[in-house]
Amino acid sequence: MSDKWITEDYNNIYRMQYKMKEHLYSKKSDFQKVDVYDTEYLGKTLFNDDLLMTCERDEFVYHEMITHVPMLSHPNPETVLIIGGGDGGTAREVLKHSTVKKVVMVEIDPLVVEACKEHLNVTACELNNERLELIIDDGVKHVKETSENTYDVVIVDSTDPIGPAAPLFNESFYSDVKKCLKADGIVVSQCENPFLMLETQKLLLKIKSRLFEKVSLYNYSNITYPSGLWSFSYASKTVDPNAKLREETFLDNLKYYNHEVHRAAFCLPQFQKQALKELFK
Amino acid sequence: MSDKWITEDYNNIYRMQYKMKEHLYSKKSDFQKVDVYDTEYLGKTLFNDDLLMTCERDEFVYHEMITHVPMLSHPNPETVLIIGGGDGGTAREVLKHSTVKKVVMVEIDPLVVEACKEHLNVTACELNNERLELIIDDGVKHVKETSENTYDVVIVDSTDPIGPAAPLFNESFYSDVKKCLKADGIVVSQCENPFLMLETQKLLLKIKSRLFEKVSLYNYSNITYPSGLWSFSYASKTVDPNAKLREETFLDNLKYYNHEVHRAAFCLPQFQKQALKELFK
Repeated sequence: MSDKWITEDYNNIYRMQYKMKEHLYSKKSDFQKVDVYDTEYLGKTLFNDDLLMTCERDEFVYHEMITHVPMLSHPNPETVLIIGGGDGGTAREVLKHSTVKKVVMVEIDPLVVEACKEHLNVTACELNNERLELIIDDGVKHVKETSENTYDVVIVDSTDPIGPAAPLFNESFYSDVKKCLKADGIVVSQCENPFLMLETQKLLLKIKSRLFEKVSLYNYSNITYPSGLWSFSYASKTVDPNAKLREETFLDNLKYYNHEVHRAAFCLPQFQKQALKELFK
Repeated sequence: MSDKWITEDYNNIYRMQYKMKEHLYSKKSDFQKVDVYDTEYLGKTLFNDDLLMTCERDEFVYHEMITHVPMLSHPNPETVLIIGGGDGGTAREVLKHSTVKKVVMVEIDPLVVEACKEHLNVTACELNNERLELIIDDGVKHVKETSENTYDVVIVDSTDPIGPAAPLFNESFYSDVKKCLKADGIVVSQCENPFLMLETQKLLLKIKSRLFEKVSLYNYSNITYPSGLWSFSYASKTVDPNAKLREETFLDNLKYYNHEVHRAAFCLPQFQKQALKELFK
């Protein structure tokens, strides 16, 4: 067995290292370097610019929580837009819903899709589903050009607010997302983490709260992202995420999400709750 | 600044590395090697046998959650036993409760206490409190020799089930703990994590469920332990941890715990819930 280690560096003060079994994919796109490694600890892993994006071991946590919280809060989600999400995991979860007629996924980087189709079947397995339209384009441009009242749910499945995902943390983008959403629409976004990036969380919530009535954060715990506890931000003009939750028959087969976890995810640690309370004063 | 990195290894497949500012303490006891490092990422850190035990950055999560869940579930906790907990963080949180008259803490390794008194004031700050009796001894022996009906709450603040803490994962130990507890007593124990050590969690729950009526797991998320999501196990003959929660005036000043987080912590991810359901079939 090789004794090579893949290193993810956090600000040159903390490093996570994974013992590598095989380096399966490496290409440079217009946006970033894309790698797939097979590892002992996490199985196959996708790295963009040397940051771990998703992996076989625990991708289910992220993808179930970014998807089923909005999808089961909404009374009847038929049309869904995914911004980013090129690995396919979010699309896979959205397509489980019996209500869904059409999913549009707009991924900026074709190499992310290619790498995952070739090596990460666990997430990419539904990318050829007939209810899914995959568009390789800039998500910011796409929502600007989308007609009013098109979507029930928008999921912003993006990387950190650096590089290609930076514009997805702007008010003009969310103003366009609001326009695309139907009256009872919901938008959920990747929203970093409370231990290390509380200021970014506050920034995104502030933007959303200028545009939407119902705004909140919910947390999930995963193995792979630094500090373990991460969040999604939730926004809707009318739908409370803790009011009435839909049932679906596939729920028993999920690995992380259940209705109790859904409601519990909105109960934030005291330091995070206090920080957000100050925001809305 | 130095460019030395401290490495915590997990099964030779995953490593966490911390940039070191200073190596403050290093001694070998009869039980383990004890080190204190100052680091950029986590502040001052305590390592036993090269495994990170606690640190300035996020010790509050572990200590608030191991303490306030049992202490606020109990109607009137006056006498408390802490097994382990030599860093002092659990004692600090227990002593915040207005009901507490007497805390006994039994730590096996005097060097853990010494290292923290010298270098980790954030956790060790209450180790000279007059309501606290600190005994350097084997916790297993101590509970065996303790009279019946002595304690309202027992907190097993131990390391992993290897080395000096291994006997704390046995049925005979919990049988003695049960004897020490009053009729409405509660015992809470460090119980590893669901992503990597689900079998150990099942083992400990099985033992407790042979002795106690009310048995469950609750989770917390921290920065420093591998895989982020960790658990405590809860057991009591009579007290339901989600029935009535006491109020205390210090609650507003906590950083992680609040009553919502208390109840949410018992809502387990689906894979963990399923694994435990099978256990009790």
